Amino acid sequence: MTAIEAQHLSEHELIEEFLKPLAKSSPYSLNLDDDAALLKPRPGHDLVITKDVLVERIHFFENDPTGTIARKALRVNLSDLASKGARPLGYLLGLGLPKNWNRQKTRDLCAGFATDQETFDFYVMGGDTVSSPERLLISITAIGEIKSGQMTHRNTATAGDVLYVSGTIGDAALHTAICYKKLSAPDDEKAHFLRNRFLLPDPVIALTAAIDQYAKAAMDISDGLIGDLVKMCKASSVSAKLDLGSIPYSAAAASMISGQRLAQQIALTGGDDYELLVAVGPENTLSFEKEASRASIAVTRIGVFEERADETLSFCDAPPWMSFEKMSYEHFS
Amino acid sequence: MTAIEAQHLSEHELIEEFLKPLAKSSPYSLNLDDDAALLKPRPGHDLVITKDVLVERIHFFENDPTGTIARKALRVNLSDLASKGARPLGYLLGLGLPKNWNRQKTRDLCAGFATDQETFDFYVMGGDTVSSPERLLISITAIGEIKSGQMTHRNTATAGDVLYVSGTIGDAALHTAICYKKLSAPDDEKAHFLRNRFLLPDPVIALTAAIDQYAKAAMDISDGLIGDLVKMCKASSVSAKLDLGSIPYSAAAASMISGQRLAQQIALTGGDDYELLVAVGPENTLSFEKEASRASIAVTRIGVFEERADETLSFCDAPPWMSFEKMSYEHFS
Repeated sequence: MTAIEAQHLSEHELIEEFLKPLAKSSPYSLNLDDDAALLKPRPGHDLVITKDVLVERIHFFENDPTGTIARKALRVNLSDLASKGARPLGYLLGLGLPKNWNRQKTRDLCAGFATDQETFDFYVMGGDTVSSPERLLISITAIGEIKSGQMTHRNTATAGDVLYVSGTIGDAALHTAICYKKLSAPDDEKAHFLRNRFLLPDPVIALTAAIDQYAKAAMDISDGLIGDLVKMCKASSVSAKLDLGSIPYSAAAASMISGQRLAQQIALTGGDDYELLVAVGPENTLSFEKEASRASIAVTRIGVFEERADETLSFCDAPPWMSFEKMSYEHFS
Repeated sequence: MTAIEAQHLSEHELIEEFLKPLAKSSPYSLNLDDDAALLKPRPGHDLVITKDVLVERIHFFENDPTGTIARKALRVNLSDLASKGARPLGYLLGLGLPKNWNRQKTRDLCAGFATDQETFDFYVMGGDTVSSPERLLISITAIGEIKSGQMTHRNTATAGDVLYVSGTIGDAALHTAICYKKLSAPDDEKAHFLRNRFLLPDPVIALTAAIDQYAKAAMDISDGLIGDLVKMCKASSVSAKLDLGSIPYSAAAASMISGQRLAQQIALTGGDDYELLVAVGPENTLSFEKEASRASIAVTRIGVFEERADETLSFCDAPPWMSFEKMSYEHFS
């Protein structure tokens, strides 16, 4: 159940030439000789396991650089691990190669994996390669470790907690909207910045220590700030009051959003941010901010959690035109 | 990065109505509220992790019953775990739903997962759902546990070991060949038997104890007995002498193979068997056979491993027309 066929390279070549070199540095891969990974968990630690599947023309554009597609696939999973406060151990890779694939694309894809493997010290430990005739397919199962009992959950925010977000919001969604001509592009430099944020989200791994110590709850934003915050509230049986005016935007995003309701809605609901929503008890906000600052991660207070109310979300300052009927990301296709 | 779209059900409905009930019995799923699974490994145990991706019209036919597609996806992964001597703990499910999907198919698919979850005491602990417009896609990452240091490898067969195979060989491949009209079907009863063996392979989990105790090396046969035996030999730096006359066939397969070289070649190289190849030291063959018998698993001696020679495989009794140019399975598409 492992062959790919009718490609420009055999499964044997794919494994020997491209995948084994990627697996070389993993202590768990058994050199890919065994069709399985072998993990020896450290005593006193739990494992956090997450899975994201990326499909061509759903989660990335056909013409995105092949190497960045691979890197993004790793990064969205690393973002999930970071939101749990877990240290990345390694990943399993399911690769579906389309009919129009070739050796150069495989080289580019694996160079992307190799780059981010080094960056994040996070290596492939096993997987499967198949044929996926119409669309490139990348399925990543990422495994992280955390001290026993220390995982940060999504459903443990409580009324009174302060809501933080890391980084800036909306860059990737604005890029996608520009590609679909829903919005016009800003100047080249800004457009380039937004595209880079779409292609290479930056998983907030450096925030792991601050989350481990001070977060009551956390989740990563993949489907849009508004929709994911609603999910976090519902899971925690609380509501949230959001201060829209305090949402952090990059200069490029801010220039598009200024006065444009469509751009703001897209930024807040479009998804693909891979920043973190973090609930912190009021007694710990200063410590959390200090720890984040030490890790050089920007975090911004954007609201508070409140007792559960009829409206899951309320706004300090919603302009009358602001509605969030479309609360969450729908993938482009 | 989790939405499916333009389906007959929303991602939210899919998770709440179909996936959460499947995850209910897993101690690791966190009720799917957290976008991650949390595994608390038992002291003194290692984890074995394996991944198989199944793609519509590559690994299963469009018209295979939806429930059996789900069950087969679990079983091929369980077969991998069995070959390592590992006890199944649970799995992550990546599900890509095509455009022509509907609620009834989701119901059937999840009923299939539910059936085999009960059968194998093996529950979903997390995953991702995406849109896969042209083809149903099922990506399973299966996790098993084993006493520390006890995993059975593929690359540890040595010269002198006896080669065993479990069950019968070729049934699934013969069914596929009938579907493609490469071979004519036997009578209805036999055709039905072969189809069932294709749809629902039987992972040889009951052999785990015998493998743990007595196997020098093992692997499961997914890409055909001949091709997979060659892989096992190469990984172990040995050769093997195969007694073709002793290969176990079902009555249905035997009736097709009798005197037909094409049918025999397909049976031996076609794949999708999910039986196990096991290397057992000559001093342990009786104990291994006894333990297999106690587990009610048929095992058959089909050859021996020898010192590495120019030819990776030799045959006690190859008829002159027997050639294995096509040594291994290529998926139908």
